[in-house]
Amino acid sequence: MKDSQSPERVDHLPGTDMPIIQRKDVFVFSTDAVLLATFASVPKKRGRMIDLCAGNGAVPLMLTLRTNAFIEAVEIQEPLAELARRNVDNNSLNDRIKVIHQNINELDSEVAWGRYDVVTCNPPYFPVSQNKRDISENDRINVARHEIACTFDDVARVASRLVKDRGRFALVHRPERLADILTALRKYQLEPKRMQFVHPKSGKEANMVLVESLKRGRPGVTTLPPIVVYGDDGRYTGEFRELYETW
Amino acid sequence: MKDSQSPERVDHLPGTDMPIIQRKDVFVFSTDAVLLATFASVPKKRGRMIDLCAGNGAVPLMLTLRTNAFIEAVEIQEPLAELARRNVDNNSLNDRIKVIHQNINELDSEVAWGRYDVVTCNPPYFPVSQNKRDISENDRINVARHEIACTFDDVARVASRLVKDRGRFALVHRPERLADILTALRKYQLEPKRMQFVHPKSGKEANMVLVESLKRGRPGVTTLPPIVVYGDDGRYTGEFRELYETW
Repeated sequence: MKDSQSPERVDHLPGTDMPIIQRKDVFVFSTDAVLLATFASVPKKRGRMIDLCAGNGAVPLMLTLRTNAFIEAVEIQEPLAELARRNVDNNSLNDRIKVIHQNINELDSEVAWGRYDVVTCNPPYFPVSQNKRDISENDRINVARHEIACTFDDVARVASRLVKDRGRFALVHRPERLADILTALRKYQLEPKRMQFVHPKSGKEANMVLVESLKRGRPGVTTLPPIVVYGDDGRYTGEFRELYETW
Repeated sequence: MKDSQSPERVDHLPGTDMPIIQRKDVFVFSTDAVLLATFASVPKKRGRMIDLCAGNGAVPLMLTLRTNAFIEAVEIQEPLAELARRNVDNNSLNDRIKVIHQNINELDSEVAWGRYDVVTCNPPYFPVSQNKRDISENDRINVARHEIACTFDDVARVASRLVKDRGRFALVHRPERLADILTALRKYQLEPKRMQFVHPKSGKEANMVLVESLKRGRPGVTTLPPIVVYGDDGRYTGEFRELYETW
């Protein structure tokens, strides 16, 4: 559904009939969000989860297909937080997801510190200092893509405070940042336990990595079999399509 | 060639006619060494390299097929250092490889600090504290397998002192240790630049990782396409066999 007068469009979450409103001028969820929603550990029955840098709510919406946990979603950008609220509403998930419009660095009594079973995050990927020339004209896209409002160190620090003891923090990021990611996680007592690399094609370098850490876990990380997205025929591989069917 | 009276046997380095004496009771080089010798960057023409925890010399011997650099090889265990010397001699490589029998933590004027283009290491894999029950009766195997004589922190510290500015340090290790590895490398200004995971079979977790770092390099690490060792038929995959033919 498209309207040439509006920057909004309605898509469906992959493999579901769940509508999701997107705004092309702000941020469109992508493969990263889908992979994070399938990769993250979830509480078996009830429990609490919180998604940081939630955008239009794609990750929490998909997570409702895997868990009955109550999910909070924190988004700094007002237009995106508003979209997330409408997406929750359109999917009749108001009793399952609560959207919080806030900078993760300024969270206070609106969250339950140290009480979440799992924290998820699809954070901004690019350090600001290194990418000045790449910064787009669109400030809102910048905040979603670049470490302007929060750095990965911020994300790890906040995730560590939010998660309960022995709780988990799952994230998706660029593999280029892996040394930053693992050192920041350890700094905040989030021990990396599961990693999975995503390669766009067989024989190509990884372009995404999924990492799950355990608060005060013992050292030792498992590297899962890699995910290959496209086959030589340019179509999704069977393994990648299967990920969409795990809901 | 086997002699039932002796713990020694003579093998050939994969894909070559280079003889290598091994001692079953001490340490037999394995896939790890071959992968490290093919993965490491080498000086294009002449230059200096040094291999730490060299065992019977398998890595330096294979490296002579890829570079004309002069290679030093440091091994703490006398019987292995002695084997390495005989292996160098049997291959008439005395003008290319020098074996140093020493603990890497006690190296002094016998090495050229800060002068090596590339350092390589296939270190002991297992932290002692976590594996007390696994320690074998054989002390020499212990030293090669367990962090008794040197920890990974020691390896990274010594490698960082040995390598020249903008020089490289390549290692093979267990992927379980990746958080330890990346944090130790950064601690000693060795910035991870290239990583490659090795999976025993498609669909299985990684059981080796290769990591190359650059002294005072800029942050940003590339994750190469994974190496899969065995096919579903239980035989080496084509890509793995090809690695042996890169000499």
